[in-house]
Amino acid sequence: MGHKSRVCAVLFDTEDANYAATVEFWGGALGRAYDFNPKNRYTTLSGYLDYTIQNVGRDHEGVHIDIETDNVDAEVARLEALGARRKYKIKSWWVLEDPGGHAFCVVPVESKTWPDGVKEWQDF
Amino acid sequence: MGHKSRVCAVLFDTEDANYAATVEFWGGALGRAYDFNPKNRYTTLSGYLDYTIQNVGRDHEGVHIDIETDNVDAEVARLEALGARRKYKIKSWWVLEDPGGHAFCVVPVESKTWPDGVKEWQDF
Repeated sequence: MGHKSRVCAVLFDTEDANYAATVEFWGGALGRAYDFNPKNRYTTLSGYLDYTIQNVGRDHEGVHIDIETDNVDAEVARLEALGARRKYKIKSWWVLEDPGGHAFCVVPVESKTWPDGVKEWQDF
Repeated sequence: MGHKSRVCAVLFDTEDANYAATVEFWGGALGRAYDFNPKNRYTTLSGYLDYTIQNVGRDHEGVHIDIETDNVDAEVARLEALGARRKYKIKSWWVLEDPGGHAFCVVPVESKTWPDGVKEWQDF
């Protein structure tokens, strides 16, 4: 038995006042279409790797990656054994921190179809 | 006439004390091989999209993306017109800031062979 994971998104955490402008900028910069509704916390520029602008309220710009997996617990345990630290759990996903202090998320995979480049890890 | 660009790398800016551990972590987390030499400022986990751990000295963790292009001036001008702000130039590349305050780099492309997903932009 094993589980799968891959990096699925780069997220730009953006304060509310800059949310629309940041979406518009990255849509144009990357040449990707999107649906923007200011009431949605996330706006995703979809692709093999998503670029997602996330409205985090105020005064908290940053960039992080999401790793999607078909087994969040097993993936978090694997990453912890490699040196990551659990920060906190939000709903169905975990926020971890790498040894260099970079936060990232481990999220449940949404699609049943994995794209190329997914890794399968052995669980013990 | 036009120019091309694409996102080529996600970079983890890491302080010196955590450099080796962060490289080791992401190498394992993503299942990618790498050559590590502590004297090199960059360690690249190569792929369609590189993940690069960058030793930035001390106390400055962050994540940013690099956009590679065959025409840095034209690409910077295009991104500026979309709302980015020039921060400073380092050697052959520019550090810009998006409307949400996220810094990113525009760098000269290293390879003459563009992978799938590259965009070509019209220059005026």
